[in-house]
Amino acid sequence: MTVNVRPNKQITWSVIGGGNGGQSLSAHLALMGFPVRLYDIFEETIEAIRTRGGVEVSGAVNGFGKIELATTDIAEAVDGADIIMIVAPAVAHRDIAINCAPHLADGQIIFIHPGSTGGALEFNKVLLDQNCDKTITVAESNSLLYACRSQQPGVTTIFAVKKELMVAALPANETKRVVKLLNAAFPQMYAGSNVMETSLSNPNAMMHPAPTLLNTSLIESESDWLYYWDGITPSIGAFVEAMDKERLAVARAFGLEMPSTLEWYKMAYGADAETLSEAVKKNMAYAEVKGQNTLHTRYILEDIPMGLVPMVSLGKMLGVDVPRMETVVNFAELLIGRDLTSSGRTLDTLGLVGMSVNQIQAFLETGER
Amino acid sequence: MTVNVRPNKQITWSVIGGGNGGQSLSAHLALMGFPVRLYDIFEETIEAIRTRGGVEVSGAVNGFGKIELATTDIAEAVDGADIIMIVAPAVAHRDIAINCAPHLADGQIIFIHPGSTGGALEFNKVLLDQNCDKTITVAESNSLLYACRSQQPGVTTIFAVKKELMVAALPANETKRVVKLLNAAFPQMYAGSNVMETSLSNPNAMMHPAPTLLNTSLIESESDWLYYWDGITPSIGAFVEAMDKERLAVARAFGLEMPSTLEWYKMAYGADAETLSEAVKKNMAYAEVKGQNTLHTRYILEDIPMGLVPMVSLGKMLGVDVPRMETVVNFAELLIGRDLTSSGRTLDTLGLVGMSVNQIQAFLETGER
Repeated sequence: MTVNVRPNKQITWSVIGGGNGGQSLSAHLALMGFPVRLYDIFEETIEAIRTRGGVEVSGAVNGFGKIELATTDIAEAVDGADIIMIVAPAVAHRDIAINCAPHLADGQIIFIHPGSTGGALEFNKVLLDQNCDKTITVAESNSLLYACRSQQPGVTTIFAVKKELMVAALPANETKRVVKLLNAAFPQMYAGSNVMETSLSNPNAMMHPAPTLLNTSLIESESDWLYYWDGITPSIGAFVEAMDKERLAVARAFGLEMPSTLEWYKMAYGADAETLSEAVKKNMAYAEVKGQNTLHTRYILEDIPMGLVPMVSLGKMLGVDVPRMETVVNFAELLIGRDLTSSGRTLDTLGLVGMSVNQIQAFLETGER
Repeated sequence: MTVNVRPNKQITWSVIGGGNGGQSLSAHLALMGFPVRLYDIFEETIEAIRTRGGVEVSGAVNGFGKIELATTDIAEAVDGADIIMIVAPAVAHRDIAINCAPHLADGQIIFIHPGSTGGALEFNKVLLDQNCDKTITVAESNSLLYACRSQQPGVTTIFAVKKELMVAALPANETKRVVKLLNAAFPQMYAGSNVMETSLSNPNAMMHPAPTLLNTSLIESESDWLYYWDGITPSIGAFVEAMDKERLAVARAFGLEMPSTLEWYKMAYGADAETLSEAVKKNMAYAEVKGQNTLHTRYILEDIPMGLVPMVSLGKMLGVDVPRMETVVNFAELLIGRDLTSSGRTLDTLGLVGMSVNQIQAFLETGER
């Protein structure tokens, strides 16, 4: 990708999170000519980027992205930013929201990239609980724009940039305006129906927790293995396909008709097959995705509390049976000896307790309860 | 083992089941000089044994065991037998009980070898439901006496004979008499407290279903693997140890103090280790136990409905939490798309519905409801 380096002062971006995604985004935006601030919780990361003056990126995007401000001070990071882009593990979103809240200003856009399941709803609820009286629009995508990896603070590689990325705002009647702004940098971003659609389009919740459990012995073996190619065996793929139907049933109860994960593989990767187990093997991007060697990764620790747990909570509220999701959550909790439900997103933390489906739909559209 | 071939006409044995265990037992008993009848449902198996005149056994026991009668007619098989030994998959026990019932005679002993969980209770209940008015004592062991394999009908190998085997009768006040009779052939059989102890001492319910689920990707891989040595990884072993505590809690509610599976490995195999994952690797008998290559084996199809399902049912009745057992049952059902609960043993099929713990204990002891 040739980056058109041009001065672009219209939009100031604040990137919250200096990991793989945050550094890649910061460098990419800076190379497009946008003023960029970068925040991370770790002084070590920020110090390295500050010393270097920015982030060196290679791969699908090449060049040195000058970072205007690298800081561990969140007030400084968000001050004057038009778009505050949160690129951090979903388990950190709540904490980021609490710490951002006092420093936000009218008209700012929070863009959670990606929101996992319920990111925008949770952020909105925290702002309410923190008595934030500013007019803030919270948006989210369902996935990260890049496949990327930072080798060290200040140096990152973008392997691939997605051709399409769904974004929705809360309220949904702001989505058009938000997407138009985002399109100044990222023309591939398009509007989803509302943040329930982005939240329920979380592919990680389908492809990570259940297969991880069913691969426990391989994970704890001495062998190298490929997460998708070795890990999504016929029975495991079939289980995920059945669980995926539960996800689509939850979506349908909100009036959302969404593609299955199998259909999504065809759309996103051109991987056309009868079963998920076959589809992943037709996706060459997966040829080198190695399997983990411990159960304690974000495939369990993030994708359950921030993916399956909110889906189960929504399913229960709607009266939609989600037995596979529930069983995976239970089994994972018992296997790793950790409560992933209490720390996870539920109707309560999403701010949806006591609301009917119609009330939720109206709230998603207008932001009014 | 040198078999002392001697005429022994005191006890007539009927062996129900012509698989690995049934053929090995028949040959062993015949070589000890007992009159033996062998029944199987398959004419092909019976015809081969009938043609040969018996079963050729090698390994820990050597010789040709002459079979007095090989038949597919269960009436003929049980007629005049003192001990009717059922050596068949636990899922067939109910059907065998129904078909035996009309042909039993006063004083006969049914010995379910092994009973899985609830074998004797289920058999007793079927006899009641079939209005069998004969005085029958139903006994069971918690495991099979042999490690053995039949190469073809009429030819079998006994790799090892257990040094100890727990047996209990229903009612327990008959156990002493039954064990004394069994000791005529098998001095290693000893009396357990009651059939609840043999039933809850089912090691397969612990070591088979949960590890099988967590080994799904290895099972469906092209690789050869060792069930215990590769399959019981640290997290899998730890999960089984935690589930084992649920089993012991159920037993304790019936006043039974039993060894954990980890302690049992030390007792049975001298495999002394801190964890189950280490203990199985110290058990040389497991060096060649290969892993399965499909989920559809008795590790799921027998050990769940005839092992975990009755334990869950007992746990619920007692108010003892068994979340790991329940989750394994649920996950297995969803993974293989089959209801293992409805076809499994429950309070209902064990004849314990509506009884208090005290009533059950009294029933186990005296056989009176």
